[in-house]
Amino acid sequence: MIQAKGYAAQKANDTLAPWAFERREVGPHDVQIEIQYCGVCHSDLAQINNEWFPGIFPMVPGHEIVGRVTKVGSHVTNFKIGDRAGVGTMVNSCGKCEHCEEGLEPYCAEGVSVTYNGIDKFGDGTPGYGGYSNTIVTKDSFVVHIPESLDIAATAPLLCAGITTYSPLKHWKVGKGHKVAVLGLGGLGHMAVKFAVALGAEVTILSTSPKKEADAKRLGAHHFVVTTDAEQAKQVISAFDFIVDTVAAEVDFDFYLSLLKVDGILICVGVPPTGIHVNASFSLIGGRKSIVGSAAGGIAETQEMLNFCAEHNIVADIELIDIKDIHAAYERMLKGDIRYRFVIDMATL
Amino acid sequence: MIQAKGYAAQKANDTLAPWAFERREVGPHDVQIEIQYCGVCHSDLAQINNEWFPGIFPMVPGHEIVGRVTKVGSHVTNFKIGDRAGVGTMVNSCGKCEHCEEGLEPYCAEGVSVTYNGIDKFGDGTPGYGGYSNTIVTKDSFVVHIPESLDIAATAPLLCAGITTYSPLKHWKVGKGHKVAVLGLGGLGHMAVKFAVALGAEVTILSTSPKKEADAKRLGAHHFVVTTDAEQAKQVISAFDFIVDTVAAEVDFDFYLSLLKVDGILICVGVPPTGIHVNASFSLIGGRKSIVGSAAGGIAETQEMLNFCAEHNIVADIELIDIKDIHAAYERMLKGDIRYRFVIDMATL
Repeated sequence: MIQAKGYAAQKANDTLAPWAFERREVGPHDVQIEIQYCGVCHSDLAQINNEWFPGIFPMVPGHEIVGRVTKVGSHVTNFKIGDRAGVGTMVNSCGKCEHCEEGLEPYCAEGVSVTYNGIDKFGDGTPGYGGYSNTIVTKDSFVVHIPESLDIAATAPLLCAGITTYSPLKHWKVGKGHKVAVLGLGGLGHMAVKFAVALGAEVTILSTSPKKEADAKRLGAHHFVVTTDAEQAKQVISAFDFIVDTVAAEVDFDFYLSLLKVDGILICVGVPPTGIHVNASFSLIGGRKSIVGSAAGGIAETQEMLNFCAEHNIVADIELIDIKDIHAAYERMLKGDIRYRFVIDMATL
Repeated sequence: MIQAKGYAAQKANDTLAPWAFERREVGPHDVQIEIQYCGVCHSDLAQINNEWFPGIFPMVPGHEIVGRVTKVGSHVTNFKIGDRAGVGTMVNSCGKCEHCEEGLEPYCAEGVSVTYNGIDKFGDGTPGYGGYSNTIVTKDSFVVHIPESLDIAATAPLLCAGITTYSPLKHWKVGKGHKVAVLGLGGLGHMAVKFAVALGAEVTILSTSPKKEADAKRLGAHHFVVTTDAEQAKQVISAFDFIVDTVAAEVDFDFYLSLLKVDGILICVGVPPTGIHVNASFSLIGGRKSIVGSAAGGIAETQEMLNFCAEHNIVADIELIDIKDIHAAYERMLKGDIRYRFVIDMATL
């Protein structure tokens, strides 16, 4: 076994603290990565706190993992020692169902193996430990190449926040001629803005805070609307083809549906723990509108996104932190006081 | 003015009773129809009872209207005296917006003029009175031809229940190779079954009542699942490409979403007054699923549907009633005790 170290929560709601643990030996199809940076996702905290389901503890969070390859298995052909590599939200799937065959591993019929807080039932049957650690061993088909031209620390959030927003924009064919609104200017939201702009859409940020306008424009958004300002809100009734809702708390879905054109689509990628509630059926029916959900994209699409990022010089806007400051970062994240993703410098472990 | 008689509610929650009123004279683009039959829609009762919004009274309900043309305006070219004709849920729209130009009058940017319980702001600015009456005068472009080959009384429900289910099935391209479930075996539901079968889909009726199985098969459904039977419900987890929810009350959306495949679409055409509530965000996000709403189709699509019905010999299954029995019919409708649509024989007026 490989000795590893990381930060773990020993039980639900626990404070993260240093923890020594073991990774499996590098098998014929495995890649070992020295983790240089790991992004901090809202879902890390949600899972430590058992907000989604009872978690598996000790829990080493982190699924926005980037670093350098330090070892490859005997059958690995697409990675070599020294390569930049990344691991996102999943590390295995059945590989045989129609969804896996289509490259939609997150929707694997047998249930995808997540990077942490899950058992890899297609692998060694042990719990996965995430990226708040110094090293990881992952099946080669779940490892992606990180383009050398991009700032590596700022690529970490692409592995979750990036692909989670890129995938639905591509699936629903967002592009030139579309008016897209982004709701929630956090880790996912700021990536949604960058991607929608790069795909050619006219992008509006919907915010409750007038203070974010300068930043919104800097991110490339064409318009900024303060939704709590009745006059501004009125101007965007029936205005958008798509709204990307990246908020991890419940919003007024009836209001946001009213901002969609006929046939408009509200894409939910945030995970409000209380669900999605439309109080007036006509909010949907009255304009043949849709509310759709989307999880992270598949591995092939994640690689496509990373290549797209290299081509368009897109990375996340990050604040680099020491791992000892993770709880202060969580507190700021909960207050929305972040531009726009914390990334842990794993050299500080 | 033309003297007309009908059944009206004089105020909200009132009992319907005979009422004499006036229709406008037949203008150059108008068609006058002697109403022979009018279907009874769940929304008639909802609107008498102000369940949707404060209604306009006196209210003559009814928007599934069929009969014979008795007079045409000087500029009318597509109807002649003696033709079978029908009027559905709407009687006017702006005619100029992008939706009207696409034939999507129900989504008119200016707001469509509904057949009753609305003001025709594009016409004479007076309240519309519906089909529980002996005659109606309607703009020619909102009148459709009823194929002579079909039983005319049984075509009345096609004007609302029919087009409301046909339109989304066509819009979302339901057809061969699709597994479609229909939820709610009432006026809309039984039409959804007939259309989905005729379009080539494999159709399952989801019901809480085992008693409906024989009827379900008679309507052409290929399968029947009692959702309250845990074993049967388990067999259809992740089974359907589409679920058509025709229930006018709230259902367990999380449960029904679990019966959809990845990328499955739940189409809401019933109008639950309490809205649409998904309690677990992952019910949508976990399978890239959609909840969509759809109102009735446009006029051109309504005609297309009627022609489709003639080709496939599709009409509604109806119970013909005398107009004096309308409240007894409402009571049975609320109990779901109907196969599957009441139609008023207007000769009894």
